[in-house]
Amino acid sequence: MLAVHLESGRVTLQRQPLPRVPEEFARIRLLAAGICSTDLELQRGYYGFSGTPGHEFVGEVTEAADKSWIGVRVAGEINLACGKCEWCKRGLGRHCPTRTVLGIVKHPGAFREFLTLPIHNLHRVPASIPIEHAVFIEPVAAACEILDQVKIPKGSPVAVLGDGKLGLLVSQVLQANGAKVHLYGKHRDKMRLVEPAGVTSEILPKTLPIAAWPFVVDATGSSAGLKAAVSMCVPRGTVIMKSTVHGLVSIDTAPAIVNEITLVGSRCGRFEAALPLLASGKVRAGSMISEEFPLDQAPKAFAHAAKKGVLKVLLKP
Amino acid sequence: MLAVHLESGRVTLQRQPLPRVPEEFARIRLLAAGICSTDLELQRGYYGFSGTPGHEFVGEVTEAADKSWIGVRVAGEINLACGKCEWCKRGLGRHCPTRTVLGIVKHPGAFREFLTLPIHNLHRVPASIPIEHAVFIEPVAAACEILDQVKIPKGSPVAVLGDGKLGLLVSQVLQANGAKVHLYGKHRDKMRLVEPAGVTSEILPKTLPIAAWPFVVDATGSSAGLKAAVSMCVPRGTVIMKSTVHGLVSIDTAPAIVNEITLVGSRCGRFEAALPLLASGKVRAGSMISEEFPLDQAPKAFAHAAKKGVLKVLLKP
Repeated sequence: MLAVHLESGRVTLQRQPLPRVPEEFARIRLLAAGICSTDLELQRGYYGFSGTPGHEFVGEVTEAADKSWIGVRVAGEINLACGKCEWCKRGLGRHCPTRTVLGIVKHPGAFREFLTLPIHNLHRVPASIPIEHAVFIEPVAAACEILDQVKIPKGSPVAVLGDGKLGLLVSQVLQANGAKVHLYGKHRDKMRLVEPAGVTSEILPKTLPIAAWPFVVDATGSSAGLKAAVSMCVPRGTVIMKSTVHGLVSIDTAPAIVNEITLVGSRCGRFEAALPLLASGKVRAGSMISEEFPLDQAPKAFAHAAKKGVLKVLLKP
Repeated sequence: MLAVHLESGRVTLQRQPLPRVPEEFARIRLLAAGICSTDLELQRGYYGFSGTPGHEFVGEVTEAADKSWIGVRVAGEINLACGKCEWCKRGLGRHCPTRTVLGIVKHPGAFREFLTLPIHNLHRVPASIPIEHAVFIEPVAAACEILDQVKIPKGSPVAVLGDGKLGLLVSQVLQANGAKVHLYGKHRDKMRLVEPAGVTSEILPKTLPIAAWPFVVDATGSSAGLKAAVSMCVPRGTVIMKSTVHGLVSIDTAPAIVNEITLVGSRCGRFEAALPLLASGKVRAGSMISEEFPLDQAPKAFAHAAKKGVLKVLLKP
């Protein structure tokens, strides 16, 4: 089968044998996958990654001990947890200390014709979600994670910084959950995509409002973004750190302490929360697809995804 | 009257007229005051401060429109709030955007023979708290602020980093509230002071435990301390940022986001919470006093307070 291989920043294609299927795992035929900013960071050297990347996917089960799964269209949670430790018992396998992570940590990813995941990780994708939209289940779940961590009252104003893929999804998810979201970005055309959801937006002004928002989500992936988020937040407000910055970030802790700001790190989320948002169309994924490439043009797809202004790039076998 | 004056890093003494007493204010004769790390930071240029510093004090009211206050021994909340804005109405005058702050922001401080504060800011100090201990009401209240911000279950392990004045008070306050506190510090003699409260402690090891504590309080005042606090915290755990670091702090946001850590900035607290802890002896202040100086030896007192290993230095008229 065809598999994408990433090593020392180079994206290549490999012929590989079909992956073997351990007990309690399923083999899944890829239908579509999405290139995430994390994949581009892996390419830049994040985690010293080498192997097959890819963790946003939809596929069809072709092999599993439990035959009822065969032929089912699935998305899959990306953390492969031990299932036995304290974290797993609390339903937080996403923090299991011995976990591997699909396409990120010690488990080959989804950019190949067939992948494997524990059956436990799989979620049935309803027919009402088109294949191309189903690729967004994982990043929408990551956006939904904020709702599991922070209580945002209905009608509360929320500022989102950054109009990249994550910022656009976070804006739609929080708006769908009753917040009044205002998006600060750099691209009028991107921000227009979330207007139908009711999200207001503006081009990042030279001078950002100070101590103005009770909740601020930093989805910029930049050191300056996190700093701005803290200064935009009202005293006793909450800043959600949604995107990692590669390397060290210099922050001035004084405003965070003087204004008693709470900063919340936020990563992967539960797929259960994401599925209805995509099925109902409350989160519009379709308009966020910039381009589709066949799997065997993965190097070109990665190069395209890294271009400024490009949103989601899909890979299809 | 005698007043301490701080300007461009120099501590001097001045003769000043008695401060006038605006309506709804009281004039207070100083009984004792404490030099706080913030005072030493003001000396180093923090806030571009110039004037009379001092915000930890106990005194006796000598003038007030409401005569029932005269002769009463008081401590005073340091934030002078407008009383009318949204923050003040929510009981959070400590975050009033137009506030001044005793001895820090635009209101002359307590290092003078007579000071003024709004009557609204005053708390009666019970006779069971000696004058020297009453000086600690303000910093104990700052330690208690953590309890107003973060829910720490009874019996929960808490790591405190830093055995300076604030670390020792935070350790005692959290222990008194049912947490199992372990203090990491550099001075065996300082850490011994909190043993009677039941706090365990150890000299900071070369390798700190990773992802081991559900709650970590950073009271080091150092960039390295905050970084260590984040890495010591379990996934979904809470880091309390209790001491400001002068200047920018370089942190790696990746562990905070991957482990979904919550960081909480924490500053001044309510005096109501501090008074019973000092009155009951659950927080032992006496052993934390390194030295007393008369007010007219303030320059010497500041120099002494800045020495390594010195805890609280008191000033008395």
